[in-house]
Amino acid sequence: MQAVDQQTEDQPTARVRRSRLSPERERELHEAVVEMLQEVGYDALTMDAVAARTHSSKATLYRQWKSKPQLVATALRCTKPVLLEDVDTGSLRGDLHEIARCSEPARERDMALMRGLAQAAHDHEDLQEALRELLIYPEIDALNALLRRAVDRGEVAADAPALHYIPHMVCGAYVSRQFIEAKEPDLEYLRDFIDAVILPALGA
Amino acid sequence: MQAVDQQTEDQPTARVRRSRLSPERERELHEAVVEMLQEVGYDALTMDAVAARTHSSKATLYRQWKSKPQLVATALRCTKPVLLEDVDTGSLRGDLHEIARCSEPARERDMALMRGLAQAAHDHEDLQEALRELLIYPEIDALNALLRRAVDRGEVAADAPALHYIPHMVCGAYVSRQFIEAKEPDLEYLRDFIDAVILPALGA
Repeated sequence: MQAVDQQTEDQPTARVRRSRLSPERERELHEAVVEMLQEVGYDALTMDAVAARTHSSKATLYRQWKSKPQLVATALRCTKPVLLEDVDTGSLRGDLHEIARCSEPARERDMALMRGLAQAAHDHEDLQEALRELLIYPEIDALNALLRRAVDRGEVAADAPALHYIPHMVCGAYVSRQFIEAKEPDLEYLRDFIDAVILPALGA
Repeated sequence: MQAVDQQTEDQPTARVRRSRLSPERERELHEAVVEMLQEVGYDALTMDAVAARTHSSKATLYRQWKSKPQLVATALRCTKPVLLEDVDTGSLRGDLHEIARCSEPARERDMALMRGLAQAAHDHEDLQEALRELLIYPEIDALNALLRRAVDRGEVAADAPALHYIPHMVCGAYVSRQFIEAKEPDLEYLRDFIDAVILPALGA
């Protein structure tokens, strides 16, 4: 997965972009965008409607977020309950269980959004790029930093082949529960998946 | 994952249903349904259109497949290039690599269909049930049989916790490549995923 590592370097994250709105106002806008995305889906979401709903001017929206795909990707990232880079419990198992625990409140929202976005991202290349740049790569960077700490602590061999596939395993764990078992990936399932699959694959 | 094992027992498969059409005619109909599914999607696919396209009567379609969801699920399964139950190379690694190799010709088709069907299955519970009963469970049964042979040969411990999650890992491997790397899950990737993740997780 060298490709992923390379591509994720030097990517701007949502948080380094200079803001001309207060953080509270920015958060309000992000939350409104996610709500609208849930209500009408990506295709029917317009910058006009976002402007009307949030009592903003379209000029402000475009100045701050540049485009609809970037606004959507940034909103999804900034409304996550906890960012991966804030997770550091001191052990790999602790970190992974903490990520599962923190993702619990937004799980149902995220599953529905992902279903809709999978098709939209396929139809719109600019959305696919924005999601990757502003949402997925920053998460993978944070996950890789967390894994490097586990390697530094001696919990995982630096050359464990599964290290490159942790994002794939985490993503797969979410999607496949619904697909195979018609159940939400709840906390108990995610914890068991971590202990039964991810840690053994890493030899941890 | 006891739930999966239980649910997959005693499920009728597409192949035990008695056919009143010749196998060639059945195959023609299945292929037409998959083509139409790719062209117009599940929602716009009607039994009338299938009847017209295949020069069948709707009575024949309903007698043979009972409903649109069952017709779609059966068509998807019966047009797979190779069924998992036919794979038996003598080693677990050989079997898994063989599955990856056999899935290659239909991969692109399957990825596009899955994207469309994920949303349709969420919107229509009867489709979700038919896909599970006629497509997913028979595949999981075949995968479990293949894994039992590996356990019997002593390649995998009978109580390896990852045994329950092989379908999840396989499904996750396909979906996450596209999602994370914007690449098709090609043969090289699938082989590396098997060697780096699935076999180590099983302790094989």
